[in-house]
Amino acid sequence: MHEVSTREILKTLRELGVERVLIQTPEGLKREAQSLADFLEENGIEAIISGDINYGACDPADREARLLGCDALIHLGHSYMRLHLEVPTIFVPAFANVDVVPSLEKNLSEIGKLGRRIALVTTAQHIHQLDRAREFLEKQGFEVLVDHGDSRVSWPGQVLGCNFAAAKVDGEGVLFIGAGYFHPIGVALATRKPTLAVNPYSGDAVWMDKEAERLIRRRWAQIAKAMDAERFGVITSTKKGQLRLAEAKRVVKLLREHGKYARLIAMNHINYPALEGFDFDAYVVVACPRVPIDDYENWRKPVLTPPEVEILLGLREEYAFDEILGGRRETDEPMGIALHGVRD
Amino acid sequence: MHEVSTREILKTLRELGVERVLIQTPEGLKREAQSLADFLEENGIEAIISGDINYGACDPADREARLLGCDALIHLGHSYMRLHLEVPTIFVPAFANVDVVPSLEKNLSEIGKLGRRIALVTTAQHIHQLDRAREFLEKQGFEVLVDHGDSRVSWPGQVLGCNFAAAKVDGEGVLFIGAGYFHPIGVALATRKPTLAVNPYSGDAVWMDKEAERLIRRRWAQIAKAMDAERFGVITSTKKGQLRLAEAKRVVKLLREHGKYARLIAMNHINYPALEGFDFDAYVVVACPRVPIDDYENWRKPVLTPPEVEILLGLREEYAFDEILGGRRETDEPMGIALHGVRD
Repeated sequence: MHEVSTREILKTLRELGVERVLIQTPEGLKREAQSLADFLEENGIEAIISGDINYGACDPADREARLLGCDALIHLGHSYMRLHLEVPTIFVPAFANVDVVPSLEKNLSEIGKLGRRIALVTTAQHIHQLDRAREFLEKQGFEVLVDHGDSRVSWPGQVLGCNFAAAKVDGEGVLFIGAGYFHPIGVALATRKPTLAVNPYSGDAVWMDKEAERLIRRRWAQIAKAMDAERFGVITSTKKGQLRLAEAKRVVKLLREHGKYARLIAMNHINYPALEGFDFDAYVVVACPRVPIDDYENWRKPVLTPPEVEILLGLREEYAFDEILGGRRETDEPMGIALHGVRD
Repeated sequence: MHEVSTREILKTLRELGVERVLIQTPEGLKREAQSLADFLEENGIEAIISGDINYGACDPADREARLLGCDALIHLGHSYMRLHLEVPTIFVPAFANVDVVPSLEKNLSEIGKLGRRIALVTTAQHIHQLDRAREFLEKQGFEVLVDHGDSRVSWPGQVLGCNFAAAKVDGEGVLFIGAGYFHPIGVALATRKPTLAVNPYSGDAVWMDKEAERLIRRRWAQIAKAMDAERFGVITSTKKGQLRLAEAKRVVKLLREHGKYARLIAMNHINYPALEGFDFDAYVVVACPRVPIDDYENWRKPVLTPPEVEILLGLREEYAFDEILGGRRETDEPMGIALHGVRD
């Protein structure tokens, strides 16, 4: 399904004068990482593979690369994110080999229900087809808005599971292209606008209002479960792009001002089993919003996001998704190199 | 069972002028870590708890402390290890509240079978009673040798699961005081001398020759399973005290010289599920020796230590335990502060 441009990577490493490189990979590109390592060593560049499971550009192994004496890091599977990197890091997003246009064609009447002026967003996997999608929709008479988003994303129109800045434009509704519900639910909650998710693999189109409602009900149930909690563990992540220390401290302060016991916890891979044995009634995750929202069934204690704590304490009425917002997109970081991989 | 000297820790932090501290804890001291955090904050020092599970002094969270803006790290449960620390780190070992002398008294006739000139070793948990044990044994007519060990340990007579330097002295046999078989088996294999393990909790004494034989048989079975392997993943750890890069590269080189495919992998918490999906027939762990030896049943591929690879390749005949040796014990590191905790 995915391709990695090995020649382009080699060229970039040679331009950088790299002698030893660390390769970091998500679960789905392990074999590709191994082939890449073999290819680089055949071409005179020593390669080490990181065996740590990686979930996003928010967790680059740049420190590990430096520790291992590597001159650079290759981060496979995710697009460039602006972070303070310790070695030159080549982000190699994986582009999906699926044409998005047929799924749009099939669902034109549903898309029409969004209005004539629509925001168009997608994930990194389909971003290389955004222009084609836009042209196709414009030909059908839509006014298509593709926003730059903020500094956390790489491309106009790109959303992350924690960032929907590119969707917040002045359209009547939002069209999301991609698989899975997490991203388009976030879009619907962040924009409060009609959101249609078109899946280019299955060709299905799903309205997000019901899915968003379902998620909000589950989250209200979590908030209700935490109502009697007196002792809160407020967890932030030591992953470079998830370390939200100021926000975590704000949550600790809020809880304490409301008479609760709160303690700041820092951890790398946030998971409940590692926390078993601490004396807390509930947890707040101030890191990746997927952890409390997607993983809560594996937690034996209620686990909330920061906006959910505000609801719990009576400081907020309407449900809000936990977003990690970047700054204005201006210059990119000198250490971060965005490779655009192979077009299918 | 264990006590932590909170007053001594506070005093040390004040002397260092610490305003914010990170507390790192092993599984068994989580509640104590939480109480310590509460106590420190009552006394004006902001405290953050590390939620990452910690298994040893070889994995201090000093980098995380710096990342979180902490001036110091409190490392609970393990004794000082010489490493390149990024913030002042207070090691607070946990001393067991059990008298070791009755178990020695009960097993005097077995101890006598070691000979009259014996090496005495123990783990950090019982090290505060080593002098009492020695005096008791000397009164019984033994010549007791307590060696300094190397720079990886804190105290004379101390052994780690990966370091038995203190046991390698010119005695007729070795007396180990402590619970569990991992340490005394390592002592028996590292010294090739009669080794008796006296458990101060149960009062039992167990000779290690049979246990060591049993372990060697299991390890030979692993080596046999790896005989047909062509593709090896050679794993080192990015934990500060387990990063054995030179040794890992030596193993990669050895394997390649013998016609095998070998690839260097680096990871933090070494575990098989994270490796599933890579294309290797067998693994070599060049990190903590407990991982391949204690955890091999959870691996779906054969997993070896470096000396076991040498056996596999026909370069070694006799089984050898994988030790991590330190240098000579000279000056300790300025950043490492060894607190000796509370005597029971």
